[in-house]
Amino acid sequence: MKTLHVNLGERSYPIYIGQGLLAQPELFTQHNPGQQVMIVTNKTVAPIYLERIRRHLKAYKCEFVVLPDGEKYKTLEVLNDIFDALLAYRFERSATLIALGGGVIGDMTGFAAACYQRGVAFIQVPTTLLAQVDSSVGGKTGVNHPLGKNMIGAFYQPRCVIADTDVLNTLNDRELRAGIAEVIKYGLIRDLPFFEWLETNIDALLKRDATALTYAIERSCINKAEVVAADEKESGMRALLNLGHTFGHAIETGLGYGVWLHGEAVATGMCLAADLSHRLNWVTWKDLTRIVALIKRAHLPHQIPALLSSERMMELMAVDKKVKSGKLHLVLLKSIGHSVVNSEFDVDMVQASLEACRAK
Amino acid sequence: MKTLHVNLGERSYPIYIGQGLLAQPELFTQHNPGQQVMIVTNKTVAPIYLERIRRHLKAYKCEFVVLPDGEKYKTLEVLNDIFDALLAYRFERSATLIALGGGVIGDMTGFAAACYQRGVAFIQVPTTLLAQVDSSVGGKTGVNHPLGKNMIGAFYQPRCVIADTDVLNTLNDRELRAGIAEVIKYGLIRDLPFFEWLETNIDALLKRDATALTYAIERSCINKAEVVAADEKESGMRALLNLGHTFGHAIETGLGYGVWLHGEAVATGMCLAADLSHRLNWVTWKDLTRIVALIKRAHLPHQIPALLSSERMMELMAVDKKVKSGKLHLVLLKSIGHSVVNSEFDVDMVQASLEACRAK
Repeated sequence: MKTLHVNLGERSYPIYIGQGLLAQPELFTQHNPGQQVMIVTNKTVAPIYLERIRRHLKAYKCEFVVLPDGEKYKTLEVLNDIFDALLAYRFERSATLIALGGGVIGDMTGFAAACYQRGVAFIQVPTTLLAQVDSSVGGKTGVNHPLGKNMIGAFYQPRCVIADTDVLNTLNDRELRAGIAEVIKYGLIRDLPFFEWLETNIDALLKRDATALTYAIERSCINKAEVVAADEKESGMRALLNLGHTFGHAIETGLGYGVWLHGEAVATGMCLAADLSHRLNWVTWKDLTRIVALIKRAHLPHQIPALLSSERMMELMAVDKKVKSGKLHLVLLKSIGHSVVNSEFDVDMVQASLEACRAK
Repeated sequence: MKTLHVNLGERSYPIYIGQGLLAQPELFTQHNPGQQVMIVTNKTVAPIYLERIRRHLKAYKCEFVVLPDGEKYKTLEVLNDIFDALLAYRFERSATLIALGGGVIGDMTGFAAACYQRGVAFIQVPTTLLAQVDSSVGGKTGVNHPLGKNMIGAFYQPRCVIADTDVLNTLNDRELRAGIAEVIKYGLIRDLPFFEWLETNIDALLKRDATALTYAIERSCINKAEVVAADEKESGMRALLNLGHTFGHAIETGLGYGVWLHGEAVATGMCLAADLSHRLNWVTWKDLTRIVALIKRAHLPHQIPALLSSERMMELMAVDKKVKSGKLHLVLLKSIGHSVVNSEFDVDMVQASLEACRAK
């Protein structure tokens, strides 16, 4: 088992990565301040893993909530189901919430923990690759609003993250690839050697080779943890983690939440960012080709669906959080492994990229 | 104008106290990080003060939301109305929320600011005495849940608090007295000289003497600011601010939110805490009499309504946040001006106090 430490002063926490972690009871008990544990999970994950976790918590008052599965249930209304359960069972301030599921469960459980009695402990047990490399690290929690993704939430850190590589064996191919999109992102924004490693090992990842997966998760978490430790509240450097996300969120909102997976939308968003970076004479034609090629090899989409017009995309991007004083800020690439936040581009250029990267 | 500084490191903020502050435009503009301001207020306050504030913000994109008035609207659902407005007007991360109203508006606006895009700036403009001395200082924000008061929320600090004593002239007598209950609380928990000052000046406060009010607000805020600065997240000392609140919350919940004002319930709660403290041989009979006498002179209730049985009160107190590992913790008085958190009392003794302080 590898242990990474996310360094955030008194909010620091460990990330445990490795095989067979769900079978280690002490990982589930050593960070609980009290005697009450609420497991929050969904209908897909509960039948596979819920009992396995509950078994470790027999010494606690352990209850659970099973939410519907999917991004469209990441709402204030469903969040309230967690509060209902916590209050119905009279959970106290010393309670611990365990998020057992993918990114949606992690985001909602973390936000519920941030708000319940103004803050209780929580533990992340991510069951998708995407959640292991992305949403379980960094403290971003929250829910969606009909007018925008992740618009309501909190920065709130878990007590620990337990990333068991074994759980990836029950993931379907599409979910696995969506996670690989975020893995590729870390190479693009700040880690050229990792990008090159991915070019060599992408097929091993797709075949769920355990060694390759472990390395990819660890390297992704190290990259993210370094960025988050330097900039917990997203005032500067952390924004680089949003490579592809402004385009991606627009695609997700435009198609309706859940039609494309988040990682799929980010994959296309990264192709768009790379295309725009090439138009700015930063990324070379050769590197743009390498980026799109890797995304294609991962069987991830690299084009906006034909039904989403460039005008609609521009409109959707305007409500994104990355807009400052009315000006669109995007994460772009100076080269592979070197990203910047920039707003000094022509709107025409963005539209040209949107057109170039749309399915015809 | 008096300026108090609440010392919380990078989350420190000033409290401005005095007459005529609503007429000073710079107070409303100097703490705004961006160009967008959303005023959140209610139907009672809006007709009196909304335009007066908007006038100062002509250089900004200034919008407003008017919520229904009352504790029963302090819900997740009504909170969502604030998010709807922020998103409909495309408010950005650099936006500022202004809470213009009493404690309910302050708590909800603060919580909305804590959650919108994971945190935007907010300014408190409390329009009741209670809000000026209590809910605008200390960073507690949140909403109620059908199963408990203030169960969902965040610790989140404003950029500044603007407490204009002039606004108290439009308060009705009952609201004024409810505020005085919290003022008395500061004397009881940690400030014997202030309690003695109150015994001398209670009639001046009830007559809204401006000098007396200014002094009482300032002294209350100093006391609260000192406690909060020492213990921002309520792990220890801050709990003393909850004198009378566990009993008070039970009364409020038992009667239904809004039947009694919060300050009224706290007034009776303080009489209960004093009675129990006397049974523990801490507070003398003479001091118990002084406490109840001051509360009566303020025309505040000192007894639980007859319709709430002691059994029902015990049940309601069991869900309070101050329960740790199933044991009831109460703020009690060693003497006037000296309070402690204690759980070493007999349940029979609590029931005796509940019986002794119930209207027959």
